[in-house]
Amino acid sequence: VLGNGDDCALLAPAPGMHLAVSTDMLVEGRHFLPTVAAERLGHKALAVNLSDLAACGARPLAYTLALALPRAEAGFLDAFARGLHAIADRFDCELVGGDTTRGPLTISITVFGEVPAGAALLRSGARAGDEIWVSGSLGDARLALELFRGTVAAPADALARTRRAMEEPEPRIGLGMALRGVASSAIDVSDGLAGDLEHILRRSGVGGVVDVDALPCSGDVAALSPVWQRTCLLFGGDDYELVFTAPAGRATAVLDAGAAAATPVTRIGRIVDGAGLHLADAEGREVTRPAASFDHFRESADPMS
Amino acid sequence: VLGNGDDCALLAPAPGMHLAVSTDMLVEGRHFLPTVAAERLGHKALAVNLSDLAACGARPLAYTLALALPRAEAGFLDAFARGLHAIADRFDCELVGGDTTRGPLTISITVFGEVPAGAALLRSGARAGDEIWVSGSLGDARLALELFRGTVAAPADALARTRRAMEEPEPRIGLGMALRGVASSAIDVSDGLAGDLEHILRRSGVGGVVDVDALPCSGDVAALSPVWQRTCLLFGGDDYELVFTAPAGRATAVLDAGAAAATPVTRIGRIVDGAGLHLADAEGREVTRPAASFDHFRESADPMS
Repeated sequence: VLGNGDDCALLAPAPGMHLAVSTDMLVEGRHFLPTVAAERLGHKALAVNLSDLAACGARPLAYTLALALPRAEAGFLDAFARGLHAIADRFDCELVGGDTTRGPLTISITVFGEVPAGAALLRSGARAGDEIWVSGSLGDARLALELFRGTVAAPADALARTRRAMEEPEPRIGLGMALRGVASSAIDVSDGLAGDLEHILRRSGVGGVVDVDALPCSGDVAALSPVWQRTCLLFGGDDYELVFTAPAGRATAVLDAGAAAATPVTRIGRIVDGAGLHLADAEGREVTRPAASFDHFRESADPMS
Repeated sequence: VLGNGDDCALLAPAPGMHLAVSTDMLVEGRHFLPTVAAERLGHKALAVNLSDLAACGARPLAYTLALALPRAEAGFLDAFARGLHAIADRFDCELVGGDTTRGPLTISITVFGEVPAGAALLRSGARAGDEIWVSGSLGDARLALELFRGTVAAPADALARTRRAMEEPEPRIGLGMALRGVASSAIDVSDGLAGDLEHILRRSGVGGVVDVDALPCSGDVAALSPVWQRTCLLFGGDDYELVFTAPAGRATAVLDAGAAAATPVTRIGRIVDGAGLHLADAEGREVTRPAASFDHFRESADPMS
């Protein structure tokens, strides 16, 4: 109704629509490396927020941006805005408010989407017997981070291939909208598949079994040692894929939703009675968890991510 | 509809209502001093956002919080949350989403309010002949800052009296709502009366004359030298009062709105044809501007506030 420039923006969701709201803050050195190109940073800052809308099945409408910058550098700001506006335009998401201030490089975005009343995908809807699915592929972003850190050996061109997953994730908006009425629960994978799926299990009061050999990944992740491979796939973080559940009888509808959104979807497990996440291999043998977990460039077991 | 804990919160404004949205970021050393008590910081972080809702005439509904903290200190967090929740409860404003991360102390809040469609107070509605009003009193927050800095001499107890204005501003929510249908334009005074009023003048395509001798202030500000007094009153910043315009024939309605909201309102000038802000004394003589302007603890003329 009224965009940027007044004290407030005014939004009016269409009749019968709810407004979905999410907020994320990115801090330099924690959520992105100082080496990231400003344009990619602009992309990522909005992408990680859009990913939350995708996980609710919401259509993007608008966003607000609060930005702290150490100094006003036209080159940085232009490139940042270019990346930000490109993804915003692509998803019809309008900037409706902002605040720019001097300070350590920090980006805080609040994003708004709309979803028909009662149609939002929630974390709480998984039921025993449902199947567990994931979009796209997992682990590339974490692999790129480890290649930057030099902790993992890989072919010289692996960084070029995986870096984009870390720096320019693609929010699964189309898939989230196509899964309305199909998926029983959904979440986006920001902290690693295992931890994010556990949010669904806890909220839904169920357990889950994931076939780690079924997890979709790139050739670069597939070429890693078994421990690193599972670390990247299960605890990688920054994937921004959707992990979701659907009744077993809706598998065709799930595949149709993936096709409609031009997004690969892979069945990776099932929901069971009980609690907690169990990992199994293709033969159904229990798999022990690797020790590592996602750390957003930080020591692990940190309560603040 | 759905609060914190899922990927998104879901909001549903009542039929006929628009959702007013505003966002502000506070950075340590820039928007607050490291000496501020955590409880007051929690209050201020939401108060400055609620002040934007007040300027639109919106009723608070909900907010999201993104918080970067150097370390998880239970004492700090408890006190911060106490101050935040106290003001949130007082204005019936629910926390619906958040993100906590490690980083330099930075607080970013996005606030949501509702206002009947067409009733929002905008910056663009001032017309020649309207009168200019301001709520409460001006300049105490800037005086407190200068007392901290030691740049101004004042009685020993002046800091105790004025510090609250800087650290615990009161958003003028009740007044903003009471001014729906009465005020022709409004803005909240965050960067100083002169600069914020100029936003109204520019957006409305009009000029304004302010009687600097009519500006309401505390005894502490009244006791300052003329230059410091006008600096605090006109360029003080952090006042979080409302400056607004109303047709000359609505003066009684403005006074009634102030009485209904238990908020003093003072007529300080008038809107004229033309452009720009003119300052006059009680005899109508033009007043030269003091050189200083509000600086959010920074060098002046900084494009980022």
